[in-house]
Amino acid sequence: MSGIIRIGVIGYGYWGPNIVRNFNAIDTAQVMMVADGAASALKRVKKEHPQITATNDPNDILCAADIDAVAIVTPVSTHFELAKKALQNGKHVFVEKPFTASVAQAEELIELAEKRHLKIMVDHTFIFTSTVRKIKQLIDEDVLGNIYYYDSIRVNLGLFQHDVNVIWDLAPHDFSIMDFLISEKPVAVQACGKAHVNCKENIAFVTAHFSSNVVGHFNVNWLSPVKVRLTMLGGEKKMLVWNDAVADEKLRVYDKGIKSKSPDGEYDLRVSYRSGDMWAPKIEQTEALKLEADYFTRCILDDETPINDGHSGLRIVRMLEACDQSLKNQGGLVYL
Amino acid sequence: MSGIIRIGVIGYGYWGPNIVRNFNAIDTAQVMMVADGAASALKRVKKEHPQITATNDPNDILCAADIDAVAIVTPVSTHFELAKKALQNGKHVFVEKPFTASVAQAEELIELAEKRHLKIMVDHTFIFTSTVRKIKQLIDEDVLGNIYYYDSIRVNLGLFQHDVNVIWDLAPHDFSIMDFLISEKPVAVQACGKAHVNCKENIAFVTAHFSSNVVGHFNVNWLSPVKVRLTMLGGEKKMLVWNDAVADEKLRVYDKGIKSKSPDGEYDLRVSYRSGDMWAPKIEQTEALKLEADYFTRCILDDETPINDGHSGLRIVRMLEACDQSLKNQGGLVYL
Amino acid sequence: MSGIIRIGVIGYGYWGPNIVRNFNAIDTAQVMMVADGAASALKRVKKEHPQITATNDPNDILCAADIDAVAIVTPVSTHFELAKKALQNGKHVFVEKPFTASVAQAEELIELAEKRHLKIMVDHTFIFTSTVRKIKQLIDEDVLGNIYYYDSIRVNLGLFQHDVNVIWDLAPHDFSIMDFLISEKPVAVQACGKAHVNCKENIAFVTAHFSSNVVGHFNVNWLSPVKVRLTMLGGEKKMLVWNDAVADEKLRVYDKGIKSKSPDGEYDLRVSYRSGDMWAPKIEQTEALKLEADYFTRCILDDETPINDGHSGLRIVRMLEACDQSLKNQGGLVYL
Amino acid sequence: MSGIIRIGVIGYGYWGPNIVRNFNAIDTAQVMMVADGAASALKRVKKEHPQITATNDPNDILCAADIDAVAIVTPVSTHFELAKKALQNGKHVFVEKPFTASVAQAEELIELAEKRHLKIMVDHTFIFTSTVRKIKQLIDEDVLGNIYYYDSIRVNLGLFQHDVNVIWDLAPHDFSIMDFLISEKPVAVQACGKAHVNCKENIAFVTAHFSSNVVGHFNVNWLSPVKVRLTMLGGEKKMLVWNDAVADEKLRVYDKGIKSKSPDGEYDLRVSYRSGDMWAPKIEQTEALKLEADYFTRCILDDETPINDGHSGLRIVRMLEACDQSLKNQGGLVYL
Repeated sequence: MSGIIRIGVIGYGYWGPNIVRNFNAIDTAQVMMVADGAASALKRVKKEHPQITATNDPNDILCAADIDAVAIVTPVSTHFELAKKALQNGKHVFVEKPFTASVAQAEELIELAEKRHLKIMVDHTFIFTSTVRKIKQLIDEDVLGNIYYYDSIRVNLGLFQHDVNVIWDLAPHDFSIMDFLISEKPVAVQACGKAHVNCKENIAFVTAHFSSNVVGHFNVNWLSPVKVRLTMLGGEKKMLVWNDAVADEKLRVYDKGIKSKSPDGEYDLRVSYRSGDMWAPKIEQTEALKLEADYFTRCILDDETPINDGHSGLRIVRMLEACDQSLKNQGGLVYL
Repeated sequence: MSGIIRIGVIGYGYWGPNIVRNFNAIDTAQVMMVADGAASALKRVKKEHPQITATNDPNDILCAADIDAVAIVTPVSTHFELAKKALQNGKHVFVEKPFTASVAQAEELIELAEKRHLKIMVDHTFIFTSTVRKIKQLIDEDVLGNIYYYDSIRVNLGLFQHDVNVIWDLAPHDFSIMDFLISEKPVAVQACGKAHVNCKENIAFVTAHFSSNVVGHFNVNWLSPVKVRLTMLGGEKKMLVWNDAVADEKLRVYDKGIKSKSPDGEYDLRVSYRSGDMWAPKIEQTEALKLEADYFTRCILDDETPINDGHSGLRIVRMLEACDQSLKNQGGLVYL
Repeated sequence: MSGIIRIGVIGYGYWGPNIVRNFNAIDTAQVMMVADGAASALKRVKKEHPQITATNDPNDILCAADIDAVAIVTPVSTHFELAKKALQNGKHVFVEKPFTASVAQAEELIELAEKRHLKIMVDHTFIFTSTVRKIKQLIDEDVLGNIYYYDSIRVNLGLFQHDVNVIWDLAPHDFSIMDFLISEKPVAVQACGKAHVNCKENIAFVTAHFSSNVVGHFNVNWLSPVKVRLTMLGGEKKMLVWNDAVADEKLRVYDKGIKSKSPDGEYDLRVSYRSGDMWAPKIEQTEALKLEADYFTRCILDDETPINDGHSGLRIVRMLEACDQSLKNQGGLVYL
Repeated sequence: MSGIIRIGVIGYGYWGPNIVRNFNAIDTAQVMMVADGAASALKRVKKEHPQITATNDPNDILCAADIDAVAIVTPVSTHFELAKKALQNGKHVFVEKPFTASVAQAEELIELAEKRHLKIMVDHTFIFTSTVRKIKQLIDEDVLGNIYYYDSIRVNLGLFQHDVNVIWDLAPHDFSIMDFLISEKPVAVQACGKAHVNCKENIAFVTAHFSSNVVGHFNVNWLSPVKVRLTMLGGEKKMLVWNDAVADEKLRVYDKGIKSKSPDGEYDLRVSYRSGDMWAPKIEQTEALKLEADYFTRCILDDETPINDGHSGLRIVRMLEACDQSLKNQGGLVYL
């Protein structure tokens, strides 16, 4: 294989154009072909990228001899069949989140990829953003201290998905960010939600339990009048607020908390508080997807395992599946 | 009884001075005595209100012949004994939220008050704010349409309470607001939380289930670096966002939602959205507690039953008790 | 001339790519050639638009037989020479703001264009935004009543321009918006500013006087730590605040003001206030530059005079020139 | 004189109650008497402070043998006569901003006070706030470096004053803050404004020129639909934004600016930017007026000259008078 990964992209709806643009913008990749069932999508491909072949048949990509890797940018219900065929045909796979529609599918794809010595990368874009990277650094350098909670609000109006509920649509972001940031893994999840418009839940509340006293919680909602992207991360030493809906100063670190324990190792009956400065670290302006596209090609070229590989995708799908089970079970705890 | 209710106030800590100031500011009440165990509190009483008698013994109030009503502004664990004695001595009771530490206590006080023909009012101050009154009006006039959800974030740093967890401290606000706004009552609650500092939960997530598809959800947290008071109320016709942490335009009503169902009564496979204007109705600037103090005295003078009477307080205590049960039961559903 | 305007674009720095993209996105235009002196810019042209000819010589465009209109996206000091040659060669001109470096240049170009029956359009993009269009509508429908003031803050860090001061860089936006919104024209301007880094003013304050009691005022600043884009427009009936730095609800209309005059036609000694609802009208999401590109080609094809023609550009240049004169004259009033 | 300053307060309108409350709250003062011409004001005095004598005649205070200092909390047009009589009767003077209605009045009062060895303090409350104190500290410690500009927006709806225009009402805040923060003093001012409602300007723009390249600028407006309190202070090393309209994080310090000059001491033709972290220092929660009241009594008891003495008040009045002159002179520069 030369130093350029030849990419076929399946799906040119909302996210597909970003995938094409970013793979094309890096030196180690070239988008050869785009497949989409909609004529209007193919027309857009031709106008925006006259040099790329446009087809309505994904098999043109899956079977092409001159394609090294396939980017699957389609609804989750189609991921498994497309990825399986790509792997069977010796192609690496870059696949949208969530990885698959079930744990069983994810496990089968992982096994297949390992057997064929091919890479799977699940597009958990957020873990390539400068903000999440900066949070990771703050945690790794023990600036926050022991983590107490990860509490996220991710709500907006729409877009209702056909094939999945709001948890499968929005919670993969939080599950993958939390998976990236916190080394400890949840032991159980709970979810409750309501379906106001059709039979899929459009509002839901997810709680992730850990064996320590860390707790994760997400509000996800397709019927919110305003777009909120607010994550709070509480630590013993410092706490942070990440507001992803603003242009600047998205990340704020607060020197606030409970005062240190008394000499005998116990907190006083009367809790006292520590309130210091707030600090908004400079965040580099980079396009996460470009970084991720570059990382994907380098993992292939250097034969390295991506952090967001099939196993990472599987962990998230396992939690999503457990959420569905909890939803059916009146919000009861589901162990992982 | 003359047209002036003579009040004794027990507890002059954080909230007590507001109670004294507001009862003193109305024409139908006069604060006669204040009791507090702390010498520093009594000193403040004397400096700020030289005409009011200050005592360290609540019995001076509970047994005084010239006191018509007792305001109990003490930790919840003391409410029952103080209120019981007040009622037994023929005094009306104004008591801080939450009403009591248990359903059994609340029921006993209600029975006692009814037997003695005395009033109980639980200080659910928020339902006397202009903002909540305006929301109530929007619901009653069917501006919002069928309610989908009540989702509230009520987080800040501290104040840790000695005798109760964060749910008993902060969730009474949301339970009482929701109780006031939504005529349908919850049938079950769920709660999960963590205790990071001592044995009381300092972060918790509460879900209230209704027999319809309404859902209530509260994030409450004593370990948040920022103060957030954000309530979203989704309706079929309109949605609103109430940000109580800002000075102006606290309430915003959004003409947003899902487009009307298709002619056959079903939503299309492809959901479409309605996005119109936002509108921030003018909110009158009034002090809720003054309104409430005035209402308390008028209920006594006119022999009317307050909306925030003992039964209202009991409904909230019942949900709090159910939350505690759910906490112990791994967040399982607890029917009311 | 066919129904497609063939465009040559001179300048492919910061704004040029947007011009190319938007002219390419409409049905009535086709970008044929891009000229830029920088090799890196030409390389970007070839990568992003392989079908467009890239040249380092603007004369290739100015003299091309198959080009109908030239878009001049270069520093202001070069506008005159490029536009003059384009017009002399029979090409329509789309030129960045500010139109020219002097009133004399603007007048010469206008005369030349009229003689040759060619169009000039000055890229005052803001007047094609949905927000400014909505404000215009509110004024035209007399929602605001008599206008009292237009007060704008337009500050950020950088970008320092080589050839002009901050007024020539940022104030054309406000001058052109004000020119579009308010039918009355200023009779005099005043400006004062300071140059902290080099010899060009990087902070300045501009006041525009009208013969009525309308007043315009702009704070422009290249050395602000935060980006502020805030315009307040006060009217006798209503007032509005336009915050262009936020994603949603950019425009807010306030039912606030002074209460109507007393019966004898005079305000009372004691002014009283009217404070009603706030209302954020829905703003359509459209790309202003695309609308403007389309409008340019239709003005050519239908032989119509653009609202942002050379005369409009001249009015703004005249005010900018007067600002320079005021700067040299200790901020004294300069009549137009 | 004992260790307690006995205070008489003239004026119990909007600000007077705060003066009474704060002087009463400190150990070194006691409010003896309050005078106000309005019966309703006197009624409020009696209800809120039964121990204080209420009178409708300021002479009761000005001539009282048992009053050491007079606080004048009345419209500016009355300051001179009241303060003069107080000083003539041997009383120290605490007077609202602006000090007097003219430079001549201020000079006469200063001379009289010095002759009688009495203190004058002008109530420039803002310089006693924790935020302004923190900014002062950042400047004194050279964190900001050389100051480039002080740019302030101070706008809201009302309150129209009877006897002064918006500059005399709102700009004293900015003039006194700037006077406190920046050791260099302005050499000239300019002002332009408009009167939309009566004959007093209700919107105005003030520029303060220094002999260095510092510039001060204030937007003041009584006809703004929203309350804005935003001050930007640009320095060579750092810049800060002070938003006084928010509850928390009022002060933000930005590590942003222009990169250091090139080795030959000159900035490059191409300016480059430095963009680092933002930092919101913790601001203590103190009541400025209480601090100032305490400072006033200590200046008297310890015979020290207040920083906000008559000379400080005079500097501000001189600039206000110059603004009026500039207003009449078409916004021309008026040297101080």
